[in-house]
Amino acid sequence: MSGDSGGYRGAGLRLLSMYGVCAGDAVSVVTAEGEMSGILMPRYESASEDYIVIKLKSGYNAGVDVSKVKSIEKIDSAKGEAPAAPPVPAENPGLPRVALISTGGTIASKIDYRTGGVKAALSASELYASVPELASHATVDPEVLMSEYSENLTPEHWAAIAEKVAEKVRSGKYSGVVISHGTDTMHYTAAALSFALQGLPVPVVLVGAQRSSDRPSSDAALNMLGATVFAATAGVAGVFVAMHAGTSDDAVAVHVGTRVRKNHTSRRDAFESIDVTPAAIVKGGAVEMQASGIELAPRGRGELKLQSRFDSSVALLKYYPGFDPAMIDSANCKAIILEGTGLGHVNKNCFPSIKKAIEKGVVVCMASQCIWGRVSMTVYDTGRDLLDIGVVPLSDMIAETATAKAMWALANAPNVKKAMQENIAGEISEAIPI
Amino acid sequence: MSGDSGGYRGAGLRLLSMYGVCAGDAVSVVTAEGEMSGILMPRYESASEDYIVIKLKSGYNAGVDVSKVKSIEKIDSAKGEAPAAPPVPAENPGLPRVALISTGGTIASKIDYRTGGVKAALSASELYASVPELASHATVDPEVLMSEYSENLTPEHWAAIAEKVAEKVRSGKYSGVVISHGTDTMHYTAAALSFALQGLPVPVVLVGAQRSSDRPSSDAALNMLGATVFAATAGVAGVFVAMHAGTSDDAVAVHVGTRVRKNHTSRRDAFESIDVTPAAIVKGGAVEMQASGIELAPRGRGELKLQSRFDSSVALLKYYPGFDPAMIDSANCKAIILEGTGLGHVNKNCFPSIKKAIEKGVVVCMASQCIWGRVSMTVYDTGRDLLDIGVVPLSDMIAETATAKAMWALANAPNVKKAMQENIAGEISEAIPI
Repeated sequence: MSGDSGGYRGAGLRLLSMYGVCAGDAVSVVTAEGEMSGILMPRYESASEDYIVIKLKSGYNAGVDVSKVKSIEKIDSAKGEAPAAPPVPAENPGLPRVALISTGGTIASKIDYRTGGVKAALSASELYASVPELASHATVDPEVLMSEYSENLTPEHWAAIAEKVAEKVRSGKYSGVVISHGTDTMHYTAAALSFALQGLPVPVVLVGAQRSSDRPSSDAALNMLGATVFAATAGVAGVFVAMHAGTSDDAVAVHVGTRVRKNHTSRRDAFESIDVTPAAIVKGGAVEMQASGIELAPRGRGELKLQSRFDSSVALLKYYPGFDPAMIDSANCKAIILEGTGLGHVNKNCFPSIKKAIEKGVVVCMASQCIWGRVSMTVYDTGRDLLDIGVVPLSDMIAETATAKAMWALANAPNVKKAMQENIAGEISEAIPI
Repeated sequence: MSGDSGGYRGAGLRLLSMYGVCAGDAVSVVTAEGEMSGILMPRYESASEDYIVIKLKSGYNAGVDVSKVKSIEKIDSAKGEAPAAPPVPAENPGLPRVALISTGGTIASKIDYRTGGVKAALSASELYASVPELASHATVDPEVLMSEYSENLTPEHWAAIAEKVAEKVRSGKYSGVVISHGTDTMHYTAAALSFALQGLPVPVVLVGAQRSSDRPSSDAALNMLGATVFAATAGVAGVFVAMHAGTSDDAVAVHVGTRVRKNHTSRRDAFESIDVTPAAIVKGGAVEMQASGIELAPRGRGELKLQSRFDSSVALLKYYPGFDPAMIDSANCKAIILEGTGLGHVNKNCFPSIKKAIEKGVVVCMASQCIWGRVSMTVYDTGRDLLDIGVVPLSDMIAETATAKAMWALANAPNVKKAMQENIAGEISEAIPI
């Protein structure tokens, strides 16, 4: 890496040359405010040239004004390669067996000091080997299915994951399945799998990380441990998401797959159950079940029914003031999930377009952009008019779950409109008769 | 109303005829489970005919299975008309003067027992008269500007409201302005007014209600009182939203207009500050300022700059797995706010469409559908690629605020892209140099 400018230009590059350091080096930088040490990070090309960036031990980046730097000392030279993976722990035949399916994302990634970003890199076995505590709770059989950031996953990937899970479950060898996954769309995948994998006899647990495994502040190890313990030992079956329960590093919340949402861009406890409480907390290697408000299937009873096809001809449209009803007309799809305001409303100027879509056979459903609470469309004129036009109210189903469900229903349900209103996987509370 | 079936059919209608009661009557109904009394509500046409609905004193509706009814007793006949408005309280010349602009919504509505729903109905003076406590805090000059549910408000309405506020402020007569507003899009209007009314010398406070004024559980009175006390006495200026701070009926939170969101469909404390704390709590008729993290202008210093034009040529597009990039191509607009996943990502299959839009001159910005946290687009390849294409990262600006801001910027800012990244009204935290 020596000689590589690391993206630095102008004043920043001159400063680094003066002290003979380059991106990736461990450095100590002295300014008027004091001294800070860490890894000199490469610069993104369009960044200001007046700052250098140090990744501190805390895992956070600090920008340092070039004009304020008094001296830079090189502590260690850039390391081009990650250390070799530690050996896989020895197998304990008395422990439950868990299948680990790796799909990519931060949990299976490490910081790339060359580009300054995070790259999908760790294999499932490297990950397993890097969380040695797993070995005392379960025997984990890892398999890399794909290596994708979750923002790039599509309904075709959901199908592939569902089929791989079904294969593992049907082998009869596993007490549960863990899926490592990018966090960006993990809740969409969890919802999709909840419909594609009905009648599961074991828990299937999606797990991710908000900070990559090789960072000191990483949540990867605790999340992986929580997911694996739940998959191996919980008395319930179905699809779940396991992530940090809070900012302290000791508890993992296990959310029902159709009732969870990523509600923060960066916090480790970004995932929250919506309108219900998490199904369980895993703490100190033990599962504590909670009354979530969702009826869960007991472990061991179900017979898996794999329905892995998805039809992505669904538009999720969020309403806002100034929304152009032509967006409904031009949505070339078989189902529309409207994210309305409040109890499930849109401007009355959208009614003709919605009516036209329904007359063409498009299933138009209403969720709320409020996130929490339920759609209730008989309280105001607007809601009643929309019901009259034929809009399907989705009660407390969250919009992301509704989108995945509609893609599943289009490919599998004999009556899509009816399927959208039925509770299939805990996604919708019983409607109160009105 | 006698003789009106109130929407009842079949078994329900036969039962009501048998006991000589009709919709709107106060009744007592006896079933095997006990007795309940309340107002017999009319039925929505497509509702099941096997239930009658009683509105209980708590304000909630209860459905009663027709087959389980043992008897119905009429306690009072239906009242066709609301009682006349109480008189406007006498003026106290020593009190601050507040302008109240009524735009409609639940806070200015009452239940219509004929249709079973809620209708915009109360005039601003009726509302003022129905919250007599106001008279000891301020002299309120009410004016009805419009009477619309907020889901029907458009950027043209924002302009009309901004102009009316400017007229009130410029008169020099008022210590503050209160705007009663439907809650569905109140946060969008608050953001829009924050940009259209820069340099305000007084507080402008939007206020709504989640339950209509004539219901026992209504939050209208407390919210109106909190908004008026803040408008009359707070030491700061700017645009704010005042709503219940919690479920108990004693405190109102005052949120910064660009940092607030409706996060629950029905709870009285549905409005929450995002990534900051509320600017103030109003309790017991007094304002307690809080450290919100947003710098607020002091009262009395600003010189109002009215910029009330909006260009609604903005598309807010929420990304989801299976999102069709053609939705970007077909968005006929000058600016796009992408609600990406996580730190600000979309599937790489959207990159060509985004690039094409930017090349056509469309300003494409990135907010996060996580709601909380900030967009950070240099952490992963996906974000860096999007920055290279020319996408504008919006840090911690919420998507709803970004949408209103873009509509304002298109009509008023010399450089829309630059305006979107600048902090104009507390909507975006200073970007950390990267």
